[in-house]
Amino acid sequence: MQKFMDKDFLLTTKTAQLLYHMYAAKMPIIDYHCHLSPAEIAEDKRWSNISELWLGGDHYKWRAMRSCGIDEACITGDASDYEKFRAWCRCMPQLIGNPLYHWSHLELRRYFDCDLIINEQNCDIIWQLTAEKLADPAFSARGLITRSRVKLLCTTDDPCDQLEYHAAIAADERFTTKVLPAFRPDKVLGIDKPGIAAYLARLGEANGVAVTNLSTLEQALTVALDRFAAHGCLTADHGINDAITFVKPDPYHAEEALGTALASDGRDVTAEQAALFRAQMLRFLGKEYVKRGWVSQIHFGVLRNPNERMFNRLGPDSGFDVIHGGSSVAALGQLLNYLEREDALPRTVLYSINPAEDAAVAVLCGAFQRGNGSGMPTVTQGSAWWFNDHLDGMRRQMQALASESAFGHFLGMLTDSRSFLSYPRHEYFRRILCQLLGDWVESGLYPADMEALAQMVCDICYNNTKDFFGFKIEN
Amino acid sequence: MQKFMDKDFLLTTKTAQLLYHMYAAKMPIIDYHCHLSPAEIAEDKRWSNISELWLGGDHYKWRAMRSCGIDEACITGDASDYEKFRAWCRCMPQLIGNPLYHWSHLELRRYFDCDLIINEQNCDIIWQLTAEKLADPAFSARGLITRSRVKLLCTTDDPCDQLEYHAAIAADERFTTKVLPAFRPDKVLGIDKPGIAAYLARLGEANGVAVTNLSTLEQALTVALDRFAAHGCLTADHGINDAITFVKPDPYHAEEALGTALASDGRDVTAEQAALFRAQMLRFLGKEYVKRGWVSQIHFGVLRNPNERMFNRLGPDSGFDVIHGGSSVAALGQLLNYLEREDALPRTVLYSINPAEDAAVAVLCGAFQRGNGSGMPTVTQGSAWWFNDHLDGMRRQMQALASESAFGHFLGMLTDSRSFLSYPRHEYFRRILCQLLGDWVESGLYPADMEALAQMVCDICYNNTKDFFGFKIEN
Amino acid sequence: MQKFMDKDFLLTTKTAQLLYHMYAAKMPIIDYHCHLSPAEIAEDKRWSNISELWLGGDHYKWRAMRSCGIDEACITGDASDYEKFRAWCRCMPQLIGNPLYHWSHLELRRYFDCDLIINEQNCDIIWQLTAEKLADPAFSARGLITRSRVKLLCTTDDPCDQLEYHAAIAADERFTTKVLPAFRPDKVLGIDKPGIAAYLARLGEANGVAVTNLSTLEQALTVALDRFAAHGCLTADHGINDAITFVKPDPYHAEEALGTALASDGRDVTAEQAALFRAQMLRFLGKEYVKRGWVSQIHFGVLRNPNERMFNRLGPDSGFDVIHGGSSVAALGQLLNYLEREDALPRTVLYSINPAEDAAVAVLCGAFQRGNGSGMPTVTQGSAWWFNDHLDGMRRQMQALASESAFGHFLGMLTDSRSFLSYPRHEYFRRILCQLLGDWVESGLYPADMEALAQMVCDICYNNTKDFFGFKIEN
Repeated sequence: MQKFMDKDFLLTTKTAQLLYHMYAAKMPIIDYHCHLSPAEIAEDKRWSNISELWLGGDHYKWRAMRSCGIDEACITGDASDYEKFRAWCRCMPQLIGNPLYHWSHLELRRYFDCDLIINEQNCDIIWQLTAEKLADPAFSARGLITRSRVKLLCTTDDPCDQLEYHAAIAADERFTTKVLPAFRPDKVLGIDKPGIAAYLARLGEANGVAVTNLSTLEQALTVALDRFAAHGCLTADHGINDAITFVKPDPYHAEEALGTALASDGRDVTAEQAALFRAQMLRFLGKEYVKRGWVSQIHFGVLRNPNERMFNRLGPDSGFDVIHGGSSVAALGQLLNYLEREDALPRTVLYSINPAEDAAVAVLCGAFQRGNGSGMPTVTQGSAWWFNDHLDGMRRQMQALASESAFGHFLGMLTDSRSFLSYPRHEYFRRILCQLLGDWVESGLYPADMEALAQMVCDICYNNTKDFFGFKIEN
Repeated sequence: MQKFMDKDFLLTTKTAQLLYHMYAAKMPIIDYHCHLSPAEIAEDKRWSNISELWLGGDHYKWRAMRSCGIDEACITGDASDYEKFRAWCRCMPQLIGNPLYHWSHLELRRYFDCDLIINEQNCDIIWQLTAEKLADPAFSARGLITRSRVKLLCTTDDPCDQLEYHAAIAADERFTTKVLPAFRPDKVLGIDKPGIAAYLARLGEANGVAVTNLSTLEQALTVALDRFAAHGCLTADHGINDAITFVKPDPYHAEEALGTALASDGRDVTAEQAALFRAQMLRFLGKEYVKRGWVSQIHFGVLRNPNERMFNRLGPDSGFDVIHGGSSVAALGQLLNYLEREDALPRTVLYSINPAEDAAVAVLCGAFQRGNGSGMPTVTQGSAWWFNDHLDGMRRQMQALASESAFGHFLGMLTDSRSFLSYPRHEYFRRILCQLLGDWVESGLYPADMEALAQMVCDICYNNTKDFFGFKIEN
Repeated sequence: MQKFMDKDFLLTTKTAQLLYHMYAAKMPIIDYHCHLSPAEIAEDKRWSNISELWLGGDHYKWRAMRSCGIDEACITGDASDYEKFRAWCRCMPQLIGNPLYHWSHLELRRYFDCDLIINEQNCDIIWQLTAEKLADPAFSARGLITRSRVKLLCTTDDPCDQLEYHAAIAADERFTTKVLPAFRPDKVLGIDKPGIAAYLARLGEANGVAVTNLSTLEQALTVALDRFAAHGCLTADHGINDAITFVKPDPYHAEEALGTALASDGRDVTAEQAALFRAQMLRFLGKEYVKRGWVSQIHFGVLRNPNERMFNRLGPDSGFDVIHGGSSVAALGQLLNYLEREDALPRTVLYSINPAEDAAVAVLCGAFQRGNGSGMPTVTQGSAWWFNDHLDGMRRQMQALASESAFGHFLGMLTDSRSFLSYPRHEYFRRILCQLLGDWVESGLYPADMEALAQMVCDICYNNTKDFFGFKIEN
């Protein structure tokens, strides 16, 4: 029996252990997609207790607590921080097999040097111990990032954002981690959402161009793109909800759809118009990304806020989103084809939320390689995402990618997280990666060429991402 | 090499063996969803040979025999019981990897104390040996239930049912297993099925209210619900065929749809009307279930009777139903949302037949938790069902549930069976459960806290179901 | 640690090793579905270098090379054969976990007696060594087939084909492998494809009946079917693209659709008309297959040529097809039901490209068994296909088939390949098969009855296919 989360956690073969400890564990981190707050990094935020840090904004944990029948007062309500933490401790033992179990214990071990099991009995001692550590100035936002050996991270930012916090962070020489913005124009693309009129007005103001039609919208976005580029931005991200639909766009109908959106604040925009407008904008943006050498990320297949009662009570991003089971692959193929024909397909990463489409997405990428001699793929499948970001899901995505593509070019892990403690997810990923490689080698499926394997580990943990996104990182 | 089905069948680690033998094996059974005949329990049915018991009504076995190219005469036709059993024995060796292989051998071992391999060579000896045992009065319906340590079971009953057999069983003090009805109003909801007019007439008669419109239908159902409640009913079950569609209902259009159904005997009811009417009735029923504290079960995604020729020859439930591959999750989300908004969502169990949606269904449940402090989930995913009720399917469902939810609150196994010999499926499930827990513990994914694990095993095998459904069971 | 691809490659248990080495490895091959060129067999083609043989037409390898960012010049372009091979060697180490890695090394070992690892360092020595071997006349098309112990193979042929190469091969007594045609009328069924008019004219000419309407089309096809039968044909194959749709056909509307196709060269044919016409033709063909005792194969769910830019540059079958994620199962059920009702359902093999539908397809087959006493299934699931034809995909398909059906009747492997070196895929399959059986036996899931297991291995590797297709092979 292997001890709980010992140094060889998730590593059962000699090869896996060697690859992890000698290579994977030593690589720094590029977290090319997260939701950390640039303001909190700039101000070097501190936390007074573990509840604030763990339960203040993590909808993964909120969801798990609700599945245990915890009172909402102890989740997002007005119970005290201590009560909330106690409720979390009470849930933990029920979360056997859930990644939250491993993430939480990893975070406790790696940041707080505490290898207690999280449960109600240990609640008080963990509460106190973490509070003591958090009193140490080293436990600030920047301190946690630095300790995690993060060389570069990309936050997620709206085109309205003035990026003043990014500027402040970049200007501060004491903090050496690069913090770049990532361009996330989801609100621009969602013209069927109420509030779109006010948003577009805000976008116009933020970028000095009043948005009244397609042409002024594109002008405003160009200003934003240039500002993001000036702050070192190298990637954009798009969340397309639901199963993807594709409607071939044209400027005339896109203009019409935008007009309807502005006139009715999104309410009279049909689903078809919204899909058409989205494709039109992705064409515009795609060309801009290509021009600037940016990578486009596309996340798709989430069904947002299916529970209206809870949405009305708690708002979005509170742990109620789900997997839309419908298939997105054929429509996504049409979208990529359209972009490719229009010279508007940048290097692209696809993330499906539906594990039933892991293989189909891995295969779809293969149809949009350019054969361009770049030594890397053009379109590639991203790491197991959100509801798949667990032991089985990550291993399955890696196996699908390997079976259908060239695994050596895999981009590896991103945290996609709002928490400054979430970097051990890279460790979790790297252990799963090394275990999979070790399994292949030790069962005779791949030669035990440790030099080649070590290179592959370093590539997947770090180098591939650096090259694919074109990040400039000194040493 | 492990011996075939020895005492550690499916249990390869010390932890799994300990959890199974010390805890899981000792727990009694609550079979909260089965298709046993209350009449046969009331009359304490006997069987004269193994063929009657095994092949008399088990469409799983019929289907397997057809896949082996057996003559229908030896399946559902007029061959002798012995010939049918011989044909079954001939098929068995081909069923390697099929749960029928394990279920059949478990049943032979546990009830008949016979560990022979089922094949054509052993046909005669098994035939004779089982016939001898079946001559023993202990091999009656009740005898088999009692031997299986079933504390409580729920049959599946139509709202027309007068539940006289349930009354008779309850009145008989010699039989201590609780036998409760479960309310299954599928025929009420299927207003596009020919025969609906006659069915609704029958429903009216059975409940003393002539059904002529929505209001009288609801009155008739209320009478039925009260009658079921008076017999201790605590759960309803709904089978929704095909991929689910949702149409937001209103009384006006529901009334119209019902009128069309009555006038045309279902023939002129559109698919949209049927979906609207179903939602309207689930709203009504949901409110009634909430009022009574019942649990609602929803089974979905089966494509019924795709082979008309065989349907015309053998009727429904003969082994020809299949998995409808279309996605149900988004529409099911709409349905649950509608019910929740209307205060018509009781505690609910969801069972998908499509293994590709295991993860999506597990996730969907998470969006309908109430955060109500009950210490249990509001909506939860049921055990791997029907075509997934096998070693790989059960393990996969458990892994998905654990990855996406709080596995400690899992409701565990139900037989969903028509056979009085099917209780070893609980054993099969429990072994798979303990093996999974053992794997997690022995590979360092969960602490080897045997007390916590033992509690979890007992909860998933028995306590969670008792609490979720609110079954009252003495000692 | 197991050595890379040693004699027990993929075989980790004693039972698996014994079953493979003693039984599976010794069985000859029936390759009942491939895309070898009859002309190349007839002329006994030779190759001057490994690049010609490996990279001349294998779109699996082209796709993998593009995923590594290789220049198209070195894939399908005008780089030299040596440069292309060098590029392939450079990619190979990145293909860890990909079946191409194993296939390529198996081919190098089995045909060229070379156990070097394929990578850039070994490029030159492999290039030279293979060139020397290829200079040996034994390395001809026929030589490779004979060395692979192929008793019978079925090519894939259009109804226009005159089968003169098949005649020539059959007439040549020096070559003992049976080479039969397989009837592939995809072009006839694709009446919405531009070029259909010219194709039907060609079909008419080839079969001596001018095709002007449904009746003459059927006449032309009957001539073709008779010609194929005269050359020993025993199977037809149909590729249905995209997620299947079913429209119930009738001669009137089929005639209309055909008229539209002829008048507009396919351009004015609606998707509904195409589906209706396809069903009408499958009804006609199905009856003909039943009459002749042929087996029908149906491959479905591929999304062809989603990348128009690359399609315009390189044409079809260049490595750009993908998995269509939509569900085909319900519509396929309707199609099979229609054929069954019309006495037009021959013994049938179904191959899904979407691994998410593995279980659903295995289950669907069960609904179309006839209970006819034939001792074999009527409709059965074929081996993991194309994007699923890898270690995980094959094992998963086998587990699904076993869980849902009678695995002992499985038809086993086909290469579906254009390459004369692809027979080691049968070895790959057989190792995976024996490993799975060994796992079941050694973990106590099936008795260690080696006689029964040996028979099952021989059946799945060879006998089942022989019987199901009715191939006549003198031992």
